[in-house]
Amino acid sequence: MPVDVDARLAAIGLMLPGAPAPAANYVPYAIAGGLVFISGQAPVRDGQYVATGRVGAEVTLEAAQAAARLCGLNILAQVKAAAGGDWSRVKRCVRICGYVSSAPDFFEQPKVLDGCSDLMVQALGDAGRHSRSALGVIALRGNVPVVLDAIFELGG
Amino acid sequence: MPVDVDARLAAIGLMLPGAPAPAANYVPYAIAGGLVFISGQAPVRDGQYVATGRVGAEVTLEAAQAAARLCGLNILAQVKAAAGGDWSRVKRCVRICGYVSSAPDFFEQPKVLDGCSDLMVQALGDAGRHSRSALGVIALRGNVPVVLDAIFELGG
Amino acid sequence: MPVDVDARLAAIGLMLPGAPAPAANYVPYAIAGGLVFISGQAPVRDGQYVATGRVGAEVTLEAAQAAARLCGLNILAQVKAAAGGDWSRVKRCVRICGYVSSAPDFFEQPKVLDGCSDLMVQALGDAGRHSRSALGVIALRGNVPVVLDAIFELGG
Repeated sequence: MPVDVDARLAAIGLMLPGAPAPAANYVPYAIAGGLVFISGQAPVRDGQYVATGRVGAEVTLEAAQAAARLCGLNILAQVKAAAGGDWSRVKRCVRICGYVSSAPDFFEQPKVLDGCSDLMVQALGDAGRHSRSALGVIALRGNVPVVLDAIFELGG
Repeated sequence: MPVDVDARLAAIGLMLPGAPAPAANYVPYAIAGGLVFISGQAPVRDGQYVATGRVGAEVTLEAAQAAARLCGLNILAQVKAAAGGDWSRVKRCVRICGYVSSAPDFFEQPKVLDGCSDLMVQALGDAGRHSRSALGVIALRGNVPVVLDAIFELGG
Repeated sequence: MPVDVDARLAAIGLMLPGAPAPAANYVPYAIAGGLVFISGQAPVRDGQYVATGRVGAEVTLEAAQAAARLCGLNILAQVKAAAGGDWSRVKRCVRICGYVSSAPDFFEQPKVLDGCSDLMVQALGDAGRHSRSALGVIALRGNVPVVLDAIFELGG
C-alpha cells in the first residue's frame, strides 16, 4: 500500500476534498473488525451535486464515469479521515458497491463504476484492487446519477 | 452501549416484536468475524405487511418513514436474538443499507431511512450511529415500500 | 462444513465452472478480516449470458431461478479459488445479496434468490445457510435478469 496517496493524486491533477458531511442522521464511516464501512458517497463537490439525471437519458456514460470518479475521491477523503490522516494504516480497498440511476435501456453499469475503480488503482496501486457489484437503480437522492459505498481494511 | 435497550424503547412507546421469520430459504442473521449480518427486514408487524406501494406514489414520505422505523424495530429484534438476548454483547450498529421502492420522481430516499436511523440512536445512543447507503429500487417483495438490512458488531 | 463440495454438486448433476473473469477493472474476490467478498456474479456459462431481460416480463420466475442458481455456481467457483482450492478452509456462507432486474409489477424477488440459496445448502449443508437481502432493480449489465454477490467466512 503506497503511503504517498495525496502525491499520487496530485500527479494526475486531483486533490482530496474535505470529507463530505452525511446527508442525514448517520455517520460517514464506521470501523469494526478491522474494516471501515464508508457511507454512500454522491458526486458532490464543494457541497453541490455536479450532475443530476439518469445515465442513458439526461446523463451520458462519460459524464457518469466522471461522477463515479468524484464519488471515489469522496470515498478516499472519508478513508483518510477514518485512518486519522495516516495512509500507512490503510491496508486495501476491499469492496465497492455502485448504484447507477439508470434509464430502462441502459445496461453498462460496470463501465460507470470503472470511473471509480480506475481511480482506486491510480491512487492505491495494487491495494486499490477491489471486489465489486454494480446495479441500476430507479432513483437516488437529489436525482444524482451514481452513489458508491465501500469497505476498506485498516491495520495498526 | 446501553444495556437497557428494551427500557429505552418502552420510554418512547415501543416494544420489540418477536424476531420475524425469514421469507424463504435463508436465516435471519449470520455471525462471522465479530460481525452479525442481519437479513433484509420488511415493515412486518404480527406477520403482516403494514404498508404496500411505492414511495412518492401510493405511499407518502411520512408513511415510508414509519415503515422504515418498523423495519428498524425488526432489525433490533434480530440483533437481540443474535446476541442471545444479552444487549451487553452488542457493541454497535455498523451499517444500514436501505432499499426504497420509489416512484421515478422520488429522490428523498435518505429521509425515508431516517425513520430507522433515528430509532437506532434512540435505542442505542451513540452506539446506534452507523454508516449508511440509501437507494431507490423498482420493486420489493410483496410490494412493500422499504426493506433494510444491517451489520452490527458483537463483543464477548 | 463438508469438504466434498464438488462430489455433492456432482450428485445433483452440477459441476463447478472455471471462476469467471471480472467484467471490468476489478478483482473477482477480496479477502479481509477472515471474510471473502465475492464480486457480483451474473448468469454466465462459458463466457455467455444464459438469459437476458426482466423477470416478470421477458423472463419467467422459473428461468430467473435457474439463472440465480447459475450465479450461485459461479459464486462457489470464486470461493473455491479464494480458498486455494481447499474447501476445508471455507467455514460458511455468511451473506448473499441479490439484485433482480424486475418488471414494475414483479414482487417475488425472494423466490428468484431461492435458486441460489437452495444450491448453497445442497452444496455446503448447514454451512450454506446465510443471511440475505433481495431487491428489484431497473437494469443490470448486459440486461441479465439477476446478479448476486456474497460474503463467505474463511478459516485457517
